[in-house]
Amino acid sequence: MNKNLTSRSEDYSKWYNELVIKADLAENSIVRGCMVIKPYGYAIWEKMQAELDKMFKETGHQNAYFPLFVPKSLFEAEEKNAKGFAKECAIVTHYRLKNDPENEGKLIVDPESKLEEELIVRPTSEAIIWHTFKGWIQSYRDLPLLINQWANVVRWEMRTRLFLRTTEFLWQEGHTAHETREEAMIEAELMNNVYAEFAENFMAMPVIKGLKTESERFAGAEETFCIEALMQDGKALQAGTSHYLGQNFAKAFDVKFTNKEGKQDYVWATSWGVSTRLIGALIMTHSDDKGLVLPPNLAPNQVVIVPIYKNDEQFEAVSKVANTIMNDLKLKGVSVKFDNRTAFRPGAKFAQHELQGVPLRIAIGPKDLENGTVELARRDTLTKEVVALESLVDKVVNLMTEIQNNIFSKALSFRNSHITKVNTLEEFKDVLKNKTGFISAHWDGTNETEAKIKEITKATIRCIPVDNIAEDGKCIYSGNPSKQRVLFAKAY
Amino acid sequence: MNKNLTSRSEDYSKWYNELVIKADLAENSIVRGCMVIKPYGYAIWEKMQAELDKMFKETGHQNAYFPLFVPKSLFEAEEKNAKGFAKECAIVTHYRLKNDPENEGKLIVDPESKLEEELIVRPTSEAIIWHTFKGWIQSYRDLPLLINQWANVVRWEMRTRLFLRTTEFLWQEGHTAHETREEAMIEAELMNNVYAEFAENFMAMPVIKGLKTESERFAGAEETFCIEALMQDGKALQAGTSHYLGQNFAKAFDVKFTNKEGKQDYVWATSWGVSTRLIGALIMTHSDDKGLVLPPNLAPNQVVIVPIYKNDEQFEAVSKVANTIMNDLKLKGVSVKFDNRTAFRPGAKFAQHELQGVPLRIAIGPKDLENGTVELARRDTLTKEVVALESLVDKVVNLMTEIQNNIFSKALSFRNSHITKVNTLEEFKDVLKNKTGFISAHWDGTNETEAKIKEITKATIRCIPVDNIAEDGKCIYSGNPSKQRVLFAKAY
Repeated sequence: MNKNLTSRSEDYSKWYNELVIKADLAENSIVRGCMVIKPYGYAIWEKMQAELDKMFKETGHQNAYFPLFVPKSLFEAEEKNAKGFAKECAIVTHYRLKNDPENEGKLIVDPESKLEEELIVRPTSEAIIWHTFKGWIQSYRDLPLLINQWANVVRWEMRTRLFLRTTEFLWQEGHTAHETREEAMIEAELMNNVYAEFAENFMAMPVIKGLKTESERFAGAEETFCIEALMQDGKALQAGTSHYLGQNFAKAFDVKFTNKEGKQDYVWATSWGVSTRLIGALIMTHSDDKGLVLPPNLAPNQVVIVPIYKNDEQFEAVSKVANTIMNDLKLKGVSVKFDNRTAFRPGAKFAQHELQGVPLRIAIGPKDLENGTVELARRDTLTKEVVALESLVDKVVNLMTEIQNNIFSKALSFRNSHITKVNTLEEFKDVLKNKTGFISAHWDGTNETEAKIKEITKATIRCIPVDNIAEDGKCIYSGNPSKQRVLFAKAY
Repeated sequence: MNKNLTSRSEDYSKWYNELVIKADLAENSIVRGCMVIKPYGYAIWEKMQAELDKMFKETGHQNAYFPLFVPKSLFEAEEKNAKGFAKECAIVTHYRLKNDPENEGKLIVDPESKLEEELIVRPTSEAIIWHTFKGWIQSYRDLPLLINQWANVVRWEMRTRLFLRTTEFLWQEGHTAHETREEAMIEAELMNNVYAEFAENFMAMPVIKGLKTESERFAGAEETFCIEALMQDGKALQAGTSHYLGQNFAKAFDVKFTNKEGKQDYVWATSWGVSTRLIGALIMTHSDDKGLVLPPNLAPNQVVIVPIYKNDEQFEAVSKVANTIMNDLKLKGVSVKFDNRTAFRPGAKFAQHELQGVPLRIAIGPKDLENGTVELARRDTLTKEVVALESLVDKVVNLMTEIQNNIFSKALSFRNSHITKVNTLEEFKDVLKNKTGFISAHWDGTNETEAKIKEITKATIRCIPVDNIAEDGKCIYSGNPSKQRVLFAKAY
């Protein structure tokens, strides 16, 4: 199978597209720009959801569910949001089909079912949620209101790619309301930190926490925190954002509260989200020319056991040992699949599990039974070793941590070796062309310069890192004074 | 709070509507027929999802995700399905809004963004899924294909009620493909049994497993299994359905496979689903005039601890004990909330937790600290007792099971006392009017008689119970011979 996978050096983009399909993660559907997330891809999303949901709840958030549709007038109420988002979206205008009287077996839209007001399929839910929050918030006793929603959203994208940019995608969107500016700002940064922790500890994907420049901010946000990751082709990927919204939405939807002093004030807001795009980021961070490489913390199956046998007797004997190993590992919290399909040969199974990035493969054959051993193969290093049965369980448990750490370290070295300081526009262009990655450069802080650099180089300011160090310098484009470096890159 | 709740005897329907709102489960949104599921209601749905998902996976199913939109032509491909469902649905016709040139700040649909083919917001996903399955199934090796999807669906309902019937609702839909008729039929019945097990063991809601008559079947199904529950007002509620679809969808979407003999055949299919409607069923099965009564197996909080205190010192002392109890209970797998909100008095908290159906309430005051006791109050029986601290944890753990069993028994007695055998249409009408509930009666097996009885009495055949006993008799309407009784009722 993986023999047919295009290599990364040959064509990174093609490699990605092929890998998503061949590893059985997702496929394009008959509906333009919408994907089908296949069971193996969805299992990764479920693992991501479970961890994130736990982290959200541990930080005091509750889940709720708001309507799929947003009346057009609510978008008009939040002008900035409408400007930023609502233009390219799916619009429901009718509510009934009828049989086509002129065409047996065909259906047409019943013109009599036209809606008085069009409904927009949510591209994001600020409008409908803030309209609802108005009814939920009267006094400081109702605050903070810490809500999250797991949902599908639709944005009518012109160019789509599986996971990275699709018309419909799955995501979570947090929406919170607070008594004070400070509390909202703390929340926005807290959730960005939660995303960073998730990216690094579960996805094994190093990220840089930063702030977006004004021109890269979410429409309606006063400050946007983000986590930025680096893909193996040297392009950056925005993996999550968390917005401090000030009182913009509260004012647009008239959400006031009585504070502890008995005075009325508008509430302060945040919103934050990550999506199925993370699966694209996960793939591009770790995988290689042989297929997926998955971190044990998110792999649907951490271990797969493949039996080697020539007859039923051997199959039975091997299965017995396999089942014991499986049970022992499950007791230690390791997820294991015993691949006992009889319609496939071991070679085909090896190829499939390699392509699908299962972190550890255990092969057991008749020789192993005699010797009391198994063969252990690591997906991350592609190394094999023979291990005695009695030390297997401990070994596997330790390897889960070791593999998780190893692929993080590998990604971290790559990322760190691809942050290049430059002091001139020439150097900037040279790095973009010959080295790629993040470029740390001085910028004069103006939208004009940012736009010019983007126009010339196609690189954008990914973020102003939150742990930036003050440093006097000159803007690489305008030569004007600058107080700090920012991170540029070409991006997904 | 609950003082303002209409009693069930006064107006059952009003009681339900008020309770959903007052217990903070859900509310109507600005979008016609769409609800907002509030955090407390959503937490119940999450518990339901978690249990069902586990049961689906234990029976070999995998989750996946398919597009929200279905092109109109796919509905035409499955004629029966289109006839049954596709008429009243949300139709996307355009993909862009633009600023209204004549009306500053207003948005209009851009007429240039009209779609070539309209997209239907899925009312159910057979069409899109079977179109996709065609690409997934080639040989018997690909079978059985056991897929489930958790999703939102939209049906343009004219009269809606929170949870029971809403334009958008959340559900799961299973879609499976099999090699043989027998295997598909076994699957359809298996999943109906899974639903029954979930309803009885988690919702504490007794159900009757049965088959739908032809006229009550899902469009496109050849056999529909269902679970039917009885609400406290004597009306039946269909809580879940599982369809044996024969080869209808395989033929409509040309899904063939090569069988073990090397011959091509159409696959055999099932689909099955339950929705947020279950929350409506849960409410109406157990709750009383004081509010919700939740089974411990689905309650977001199984236990709530309310501190009683007059000053900070007492609050601290009580909190210390409360925290110890909370930790001890959590270790035993009991979910506990310590309601230490200072802005509310104990009386208000008691009222809220009663209204919201928390199974057990523990109150701790200074007197209790002196005596080494707490006050324990059961929501199901409304009884209170003083319990010594040292026996509290075991007591609570046992009560979880006892309460779960008690509310199931109570619902079962009610249900069983509301299944009435009748032998004439007069008796039938009399039971409907004066007693309500299920009516077990002979029916001649024809659609005509079924329709007539429905016309005269508004009662429908809820199901032909799967464990029915053959019994010769005469149809209550036509007098024609009948081989078995079926269950009639007025229904939600």
